[in-house]
Amino acid sequence: MLPSAKVIHVDTRGAVILSEESPETRDSRGIYLPNYIEPVSHIAVDVGGSLAKVVYFTRSPEPPSSPSVIATRGSGTPSNLSSPRSHSPPSEPDAAASLFPPAIGKRTTNGALTPLILADPYTHSYPGNISELTGLANSSLVRDTILRRTVHHFPGGSLNFERFETDAIDECVEFIQGLIERSADVNGVSIDEMRKGVKIMATGGGAHKFYELFHKTLCVEVRREDEMECLIEGLKFITLIPDEVYYFSDELIQSVTQSGPSAGPSALPAAAPNGVLERPSPTPPQSVTQSGLSAGPSTLPAVAPNGVLERPSPNPPAYAVTFESNPTPQLPCLLVNIGSGVSIIKVDEDGKFERVSGTSLGGGTLWGLLSLLTPATTFDEMLAFSEQGDNATVDMLVGDIYGQDYSRLGLKSTMIASSFGKVFKKGGDKRQFSPEDISRSLLYAVSNNIGQIAYMNAEKYNLERIYFGGCFIRGHAATIGTLSYAIRFWSKGTKRALFLRHEGFLGSIGAWLKNIVEEDDA
Amino acid sequence: MLPSAKVIHVDTRGAVILSEESPETRDSRGIYLPNYIEPVSHIAVDVGGSLAKVVYFTRSPEPPSSPSVIATRGSGTPSNLSSPRSHSPPSEPDAAASLFPPAIGKRTTNGALTPLILADPYTHSYPGNISELTGLANSSLVRDTILRRTVHHFPGGSLNFERFETDAIDECVEFIQGLIERSADVNGVSIDEMRKGVKIMATGGGAHKFYELFHKTLCVEVRREDEMECLIEGLKFITLIPDEVYYFSDELIQSVTQSGPSAGPSALPAAAPNGVLERPSPTPPQSVTQSGLSAGPSTLPAVAPNGVLERPSPNPPAYAVTFESNPTPQLPCLLVNIGSGVSIIKVDEDGKFERVSGTSLGGGTLWGLLSLLTPATTFDEMLAFSEQGDNATVDMLVGDIYGQDYSRLGLKSTMIASSFGKVFKKGGDKRQFSPEDISRSLLYAVSNNIGQIAYMNAEKYNLERIYFGGCFIRGHAATIGTLSYAIRFWSKGTKRALFLRHEGFLGSIGAWLKNIVEEDDA
Repeated sequence: MLPSAKVIHVDTRGAVILSEESPETRDSRGIYLPNYIEPVSHIAVDVGGSLAKVVYFTRSPEPPSSPSVIATRGSGTPSNLSSPRSHSPPSEPDAAASLFPPAIGKRTTNGALTPLILADPYTHSYPGNISELTGLANSSLVRDTILRRTVHHFPGGSLNFERFETDAIDECVEFIQGLIERSADVNGVSIDEMRKGVKIMATGGGAHKFYELFHKTLCVEVRREDEMECLIEGLKFITLIPDEVYYFSDELIQSVTQSGPSAGPSALPAAAPNGVLERPSPTPPQSVTQSGLSAGPSTLPAVAPNGVLERPSPNPPAYAVTFESNPTPQLPCLLVNIGSGVSIIKVDEDGKFERVSGTSLGGGTLWGLLSLLTPATTFDEMLAFSEQGDNATVDMLVGDIYGQDYSRLGLKSTMIASSFGKVFKKGGDKRQFSPEDISRSLLYAVSNNIGQIAYMNAEKYNLERIYFGGCFIRGHAATIGTLSYAIRFWSKGTKRALFLRHEGFLGSIGAWLKNIVEEDDA
Repeated sequence: MLPSAKVIHVDTRGAVILSEESPETRDSRGIYLPNYIEPVSHIAVDVGGSLAKVVYFTRSPEPPSSPSVIATRGSGTPSNLSSPRSHSPPSEPDAAASLFPPAIGKRTTNGALTPLILADPYTHSYPGNISELTGLANSSLVRDTILRRTVHHFPGGSLNFERFETDAIDECVEFIQGLIERSADVNGVSIDEMRKGVKIMATGGGAHKFYELFHKTLCVEVRREDEMECLIEGLKFITLIPDEVYYFSDELIQSVTQSGPSAGPSALPAAAPNGVLERPSPTPPQSVTQSGLSAGPSTLPAVAPNGVLERPSPNPPAYAVTFESNPTPQLPCLLVNIGSGVSIIKVDEDGKFERVSGTSLGGGTLWGLLSLLTPATTFDEMLAFSEQGDNATVDMLVGDIYGQDYSRLGLKSTMIASSFGKVFKKGGDKRQFSPEDISRSLLYAVSNNIGQIAYMNAEKYNLERIYFGGCFIRGHAATIGTLSYAIRFWSKGTKRALFLRHEGFLGSIGAWLKNIVEEDDA
């Protein structure tokens, strides 16, 4: 095992999440960091069982044109990032910030890397196409001014996110290859010089399985970082970004977990047709949060724990998502990372962590079974199916067994007693079930099971905050609603499930943060 | 809710489990009770979501010819049965026992009911065909002798078990109808008189759903009893039967959970081809128990909890089942009842109980999904498939992701990271997977998930004994092995999964025990 790299400090003040181009990329939207200063010498990649996630930083002094731009100060001194910078005098970042008042314009899409090595160690001036870097006309006056000002402090840039299928890992390698080539061109240096200045910070299982592939194909240094460490570093960073963390109100949880075909997309006004979250709710977070909390216990069925969800109802209540615009301390917490499989990690207040549990019933289980049971060929198709399904046709409900509630145990007749319990019939009468109903039933089953196991661990370790990460979630309302319902249900309304807009990139963000800071830059 | 009935006392001394006719009925084999005396006036039925279980008692002074006959004293004073009888002087049962030394002969298969009402309240003599009742030649001398001796104390009889599909509930009703008719004939009374003396003790969800059906069709009194109460009463009774409770040695757990197609039935010498347990292991229980316990920790992988099972290995270790021939105190305990769905019930030392958890991922889920994914038309076919399968073709193992162990977390490369994680492929390439491999993977997934949730509850409530009941188990080695492995794994070898040969009949046995004892018989 390699010695863990030093964690770099990222100034998150004023950070904004850029607007997504489409629902498919909503979890890959960039994050603009107007006050981030240091050059970055690496590309981070987290290769899991099903997906490879890439994170890299491109410089740009221009703030993005984004509907989600909110003027927030963010956190200038993130207490959870172990960095000397966090102890730097407040005057310095403020001064740096004042150098570049927010300009107008669109963010450069073909962002390029600007490795530290490309900065002249003596003058710290930047070679190559400075106008591309600054986005300003290359008037020599302006240029010289900038060069003098940008000694170590040329601020602004975007954190970029890309996702690839692990089965098509070559596409991921090609993408990184192209990024390196474009960066060499933009910086006016040779590809070999660029390669010297770039390294790959790799994590996830694929960091080991594909180490040689990355190293040999890209001809750059590849460093492997521990998966769990990166997940936690990524969590600590991403939860500092305004509007990154969100949760469903109890009304929304009910509306989503109860919305059947009769309800559907129209019942989710703030959601795209495929049930993907779009952007912060216009409702003021505070009021929504309060209503959500106060409504909590009352909207939960007063029943004994039984691990079953309610079946669709024709009249789902109002919908609301709360985004944490002002990040709050996020440790200690439980991180439930749902990829192909599920890892459950306990994080202490000091950042120490332990993988305390997990389950093999994760995203890979849902994707695999639904690819066998439905015509869906992509995960989004599967989720779209589930939006239109009614699980009551395949699930055995309490009422199917009792003909009524099991009132003595408080089991409602509408609760799921047995997932897929209606399918098996004597004599193997193989009936047809709709892909929609099958998809909804399995989504419920997998999500609720994860929520149940997550809650039991949160209870065991007495943790209040439960974050759900991983590409399984994909901002999908039914998934988020089911996980949220399970936590609310099992905790009798005392605990809440928290979600992340960059849920799938915790590991790659953590790897990106584990850059080795050069001595003269530390 | 009806007032709960008084629990009758059953003298379990010398109780023996009869030999099964076939693996399909191995969990329905009768229990011979040589010292049970009181007439029984009822038939018990537990109607669940998938199966209806029937229990009834037939008199016979003859002990059965059974390979599992073992001379045990059993428990004369069952401390867990709240009955006045349990406080009776020890001399009485001893005397009663000495009256009827074990005779030779085969057990009468067409057993009939002998309701209390048919015993003359004054002479307590039995009407009708006494030779049918006693199985002795009707020499008047012997007959008179017996009659005098059998005042209230005509001992011996069998507890009989039958199972029906809930979808075919009419078959269950017809069976009971036939039993009542046969009993009227054997006792030489009219069907109407017999109906007056018989009642149905019904439990399970179907007790409510099918109440009218039973009442109207059979024209007998139908009493409904609470499902959970009956489960616990049944557990307390059945665990007093010698050789009823059993568990797998750690070597056996390993052998079963690791036995792939290369291993298979031949690797399970004591198991029938379909992996069903046959009878007590010849190995002396004591030594096996000790070896099992001592081998415990060492055979468990020294890893952090991760909820994954090992994949098949070509060299499974030795096989051994331990039957508890001398029942030990069984409370407090956790009962995990696995039917279509799963109920997890905490039972205190004093018999108080609470349904503390459950999951909708149960037998119905396995049966339903496998009926969609395989050509199997019965549960036993599904289990037979799983015997021949290799889950590694459909499950994503740690090694598939890492290309090696995740040694830092102690995750072996052979562990399941994602159930069905290998199935979903980009572009929806729908490949073919064998029914065998799919069945094994899903059996692992469902069983291990139940074991994991069961363990977390046993840990939460600090319970040492974890009983698994319900028709899901069916004495199937892979199921038992997986549940056992999960408990051993998660408890780091400190807890053990316990199983029951009449696993599916706890509720119906409990209902049968809830007979109202007549005043003059109490």
